[in-house]
Amino acid sequence: VPIHTALTRRFALQHPIVLAPMGGVSGGRLAATVSNAGALGFVGGGYGDLAWVERELELVAHGTTRPWGVGFITWSLTPQVLDLALRFKPCAVMLSFGDPVPWTTTIKASGCALFCQVQDRAGAAAAVTAGADFVVAQGTEAGGHGGRRSTFPLVPAVADMVAPTPVLAAGGVADGRGLAASIMLGAHGAVIGTRFYASVEALGHEKLKQEIAARGGDDTVRTRLFDLIRGHSWPARHDGRAVSNSFIAQWQDRQPEATRHTAELNDDFRQSQASGDVDGAMIWAGECMDLIRDVRPAAALVHEIGVAAEMAIRRAQALSA
Amino acid sequence: VPIHTALTRRFALQHPIVLAPMGGVSGGRLAATVSNAGALGFVGGGYGDLAWVERELELVAHGTTRPWGVGFITWSLTPQVLDLALRFKPCAVMLSFGDPVPWTTTIKASGCALFCQVQDRAGAAAAVTAGADFVVAQGTEAGGHGGRRSTFPLVPAVADMVAPTPVLAAGGVADGRGLAASIMLGAHGAVIGTRFYASVEALGHEKLKQEIAARGGDDTVRTRLFDLIRGHSWPARHDGRAVSNSFIAQWQDRQPEATRHTAELNDDFRQSQASGDVDGAMIWAGECMDLIRDVRPAAALVHEIGVAAEMAIRRAQALSA
Repeated sequence: VPIHTALTRRFALQHPIVLAPMGGVSGGRLAATVSNAGALGFVGGGYGDLAWVERELELVAHGTTRPWGVGFITWSLTPQVLDLALRFKPCAVMLSFGDPVPWTTTIKASGCALFCQVQDRAGAAAAVTAGADFVVAQGTEAGGHGGRRSTFPLVPAVADMVAPTPVLAAGGVADGRGLAASIMLGAHGAVIGTRFYASVEALGHEKLKQEIAARGGDDTVRTRLFDLIRGHSWPARHDGRAVSNSFIAQWQDRQPEATRHTAELNDDFRQSQASGDVDGAMIWAGECMDLIRDVRPAAALVHEIGVAAEMAIRRAQALSA
Repeated sequence: VPIHTALTRRFALQHPIVLAPMGGVSGGRLAATVSNAGALGFVGGGYGDLAWVERELELVAHGTTRPWGVGFITWSLTPQVLDLALRFKPCAVMLSFGDPVPWTTTIKASGCALFCQVQDRAGAAAAVTAGADFVVAQGTEAGGHGGRRSTFPLVPAVADMVAPTPVLAAGGVADGRGLAASIMLGAHGAVIGTRFYASVEALGHEKLKQEIAARGGDDTVRTRLFDLIRGHSWPARHDGRAVSNSFIAQWQDRQPEATRHTAELNDDFRQSQASGDVDGAMIWAGECMDLIRDVRPAAALVHEIGVAAEMAIRRAQALSA
């Protein structure tokens, strides 16, 4: 029996699961697969590369007739890329990292639901001001960029703050136990990233996906290194969680020196990323890697996580029978 | 209808709740109150001050006929303090931060259940080797000393590793939502600290408790400052989470200088602690402070958290009816 929440009702979902809009990973094929499986797929618009966004949104728009969304890094968003995205008629736009207010009128006028991802109480307050339809409370255990608060205490705190706006949990969810726990904390569903990175339909080299399946949650590190060499001007409070590797080990504590060699380092890193060299690649991944032991089709993941959450809730009910 | 788990069955509890053995806060009166209310009270043996431990264990031993326990910081434990503690016939001993193996024979020979608190996979493996009866997976959102991993992904990862040994969740739990979420993640109960610090029966100045009720989860900081000025030689990987205040703001980034003034700073800090001066005191507290808005009797807290968790599970069940 599916779990019904404000999220599943709004988008007629089978499961209260959202694909995290992972930049460069959540492409149109993955988003469409997740939506077709009864969850809500998001394309990761990342830094708003127009050609990439157009290609991937064409894929998702042609790949599903079910609701889907697109996510952007708010501080890097431009009117051009937002207009381009809205032409593909997404049902939802997720904004993370920055003030959503300048974009809300356009997004809401298009009929899209506005998802605002936040990392602390100040962000939650800003999301309410912006008129968010859903607030995503993202814990520091998430892969990629994030804040400092942990999912477990952040979700109920944000839920209390923004009520009656529904909250979703992000960071640390990779299986049915995590989805069920999200519901208990007061969330209406979970935003799942790393688990879907290790899926057949995700973009990214197969060897990087296998690395996620092979490594564990103790093997991540928060770093600014990749932003530095890529020249991305992230706000100081948001670094990112990546799988630790020899590239990070070599440069993490020598960032001033790395700054003087960004061109070469950027070339090396891009080559590693393309060839699947796990020692030199940027593999954004969360602490939930312990729970990921294989690369699987995304539709199977949606089904398994949804059903396992329903079973976890039924099992807990039986504990008090 | 109460939630029954390996924890409640072992100690005949009404609720799968454990009082965290907070050093200097979880005294005999609080532990006895929690045990009498149907949960499992622990006295926080801290650094093993013999006079303190004897006084507080007398209080708990005379204050309840129900099961109770005592917790120690493993690396600071001595045979003298363990022998003293065991003379009071606790039902459980919790060891945190260090290798439990040298102590397990004595603890188990006394008939006590052994609780090992861990912060990562290496710690979980060591707990199994030590023959732990319960493994406490403590997330970085917890108040006081801790590790780097977050509760949400750590609990299921540890549960998978140590099965069939039962796991408890620690860090971030302050209400029924958190207890219910702990159960969903695969835990058999939750270890709750900060919420019980803000209780009538906790040791510590009333003003410090009120500060916990007044502040939020964004207002904590991880620091070694108090260990430095107190002369405690903590392993480098374990700093502690405290309520941010002007003392920390002043010295956090000047620790070499603080090292040269430990005597004066220690005097100042002890005076602040005794007088309840929140600007200068050490208030170990977790990110769950958002969920704590008052100082309440501990028995009421046990009852409310337990019943709210049962209701959260029933409500979730109804979502899929």
